[in-house]
Amino acid sequence: MRALVTGAAGFIGSNLTDRLLAQGWSVRGIDNFSSGRREFLANAERHASFELHEADLLTSPNLKDLFAGIDIVFHLAANADVRFGPDHPKKDLEQNTICTANVLEAMRECSVGRIVFSSTGSVYGEPGVFPTPEDAPFPVQTSLYGASKLAAEGLIAAYSESFGIQGYIFRFVSILGERYTHGHVFDFCKQLLEHPDRLRVLGDGTQRKSYLEIQDCINAILIVIEKSDEKIQIFNLGTDEYCMVNDSIGWICERLGVNPKREYTGGNRGWIGDNPFIFLDCSRVRALGWSPCLTIEQGVRKTVRYLQSNERLLRERFE
Amino acid sequence: MRALVTGAAGFIGSNLTDRLLAQGWSVRGIDNFSSGRREFLANAERHASFELHEADLLTSPNLKDLFAGIDIVFHLAANADVRFGPDHPKKDLEQNTICTANVLEAMRECSVGRIVFSSTGSVYGEPGVFPTPEDAPFPVQTSLYGASKLAAEGLIAAYSESFGIQGYIFRFVSILGERYTHGHVFDFCKQLLEHPDRLRVLGDGTQRKSYLEIQDCINAILIVIEKSDEKIQIFNLGTDEYCMVNDSIGWICERLGVNPKREYTGGNRGWIGDNPFIFLDCSRVRALGWSPCLTIEQGVRKTVRYLQSNERLLRERFE
Repeated sequence: MRALVTGAAGFIGSNLTDRLLAQGWSVRGIDNFSSGRREFLANAERHASFELHEADLLTSPNLKDLFAGIDIVFHLAANADVRFGPDHPKKDLEQNTICTANVLEAMRECSVGRIVFSSTGSVYGEPGVFPTPEDAPFPVQTSLYGASKLAAEGLIAAYSESFGIQGYIFRFVSILGERYTHGHVFDFCKQLLEHPDRLRVLGDGTQRKSYLEIQDCINAILIVIEKSDEKIQIFNLGTDEYCMVNDSIGWICERLGVNPKREYTGGNRGWIGDNPFIFLDCSRVRALGWSPCLTIEQGVRKTVRYLQSNERLLRERFE
Repeated sequence: MRALVTGAAGFIGSNLTDRLLAQGWSVRGIDNFSSGRREFLANAERHASFELHEADLLTSPNLKDLFAGIDIVFHLAANADVRFGPDHPKKDLEQNTICTANVLEAMRECSVGRIVFSSTGSVYGEPGVFPTPEDAPFPVQTSLYGASKLAAEGLIAAYSESFGIQGYIFRFVSILGERYTHGHVFDFCKQLLEHPDRLRVLGDGTQRKSYLEIQDCINAILIVIEKSDEKIQIFNLGTDEYCMVNDSIGWICERLGVNPKREYTGGNRGWIGDNPFIFLDCSRVRALGWSPCLTIEQGVRKTVRYLQSNERLLRERFE
């Protein structure tokens, strides 16, 4: 199988690339290196069946040249940060919606038949049903990030109906693990490296969130594309549990051996558009035989260990 | 009140403009005249409190200059044709999604606090619940048009959450009435003017559709913005009934005094992404005291009369 992975140098993209190569796939990676890191592809670049192209999905004039001969696109390139949407309102639209439109057009021109898309549980806004199933009541968007991903989902479904492209849409909870470079575990570890005696927490720490470890995430994607053959398919992806931000702080501090004073910014939301409760119903993907290997606690602890071993990441600024 | 109406020279925009002016509002109209018609604004242009600007929401570099001093935006400019999406896949994205993003940015820069948006029942894809309520199960998009409008809805909701803009989103069934220049009544009248003895019908004629007359549509919008004050609000807008395409053909032929041979293209969908059954639950807007004055049959007949009196419209090609 010949895969094209967008955002190949990113957290999810590079882990997926490694796995596909290990399973004997050919992988063409694309990244604009706005937040991706070449070092994450060090392993991949040792494979003869891997090629890397520096290209921008928004602006590249010859994008379709990269899609020739591809069987399936894993479209993971994105602006992945929910939090800073209001600081640059066009970024989510451009990076998540318009780039997806450009990918779909390139696929259509090159007759590429399948796309895997990394959507988000944020598309549920603030749902009224927990755990939230894929066919929950029609949501109202609360973040520019969620809105931009929902728009991309809609484009993929419409392309599927219009042009016969097969679409696999995954609504992720937050993903954790090796090469993780943004999110609350990263923020907290970074703070505690700089000042182990205090920790600033957005909101009141009672926000309930779900997390999934990257290898569990990749397992699910690979099972779905092997076993499921509908024209358009949507899967929640998470664990069957949630934790409070305060729980996660406890695990992180224990692992780091620190006991900081917690300074809460207050309120039950960490930022505008923050969803105080994320808990997805993942029975649809579980029915295909998938289940996660790690609990949330195990995922958080593993991620802290990774960041401890790669402390330089915490000293950098990621977009 | 000072309103800005985008798509002011269009079918809905020009009718709304006339109504607002009659009620004493000041109206600034914008149109790029891609499908809008100056003649539809003949009445408006007699009002001192009306001004018209030829501008393109997608490309105009100084859009925000037009938003200064506005109390509420009625964003009606759109590519309104569901049917031809696959012929030009970027058109819906550009005209419906990106233009809405540009409108929202201009509003934000000029501190305009309220937006009314013309969305569509097409965002429900092919729903499983009839009549379909606003909180129906999370739909899967089936048309580029629906996907582009859903994306715009999401942007409006996210802007509302992020920047405090108040958003009124209306999911219309097909709107009929004076100045109507596209849709099935238009197509059928145009065909029957050219060849009264035969009528080509897309699909098998059993598609069940809902329609609403333009003045009923405007009544609903004005009642909602007067009575409802939530941050973000979504309303279906239609009649509490549906008809078959074949019913509508009967009314049209009777009114025109013709008896054509009907040539069906077959299948239960007229085109890719056509929804064979549209029937919206409008109890949310009815609870505010609105109800339509005309039935679907009355709306169709009124529209045919209008087209008979304005036969020149049928001889033109609208984008």
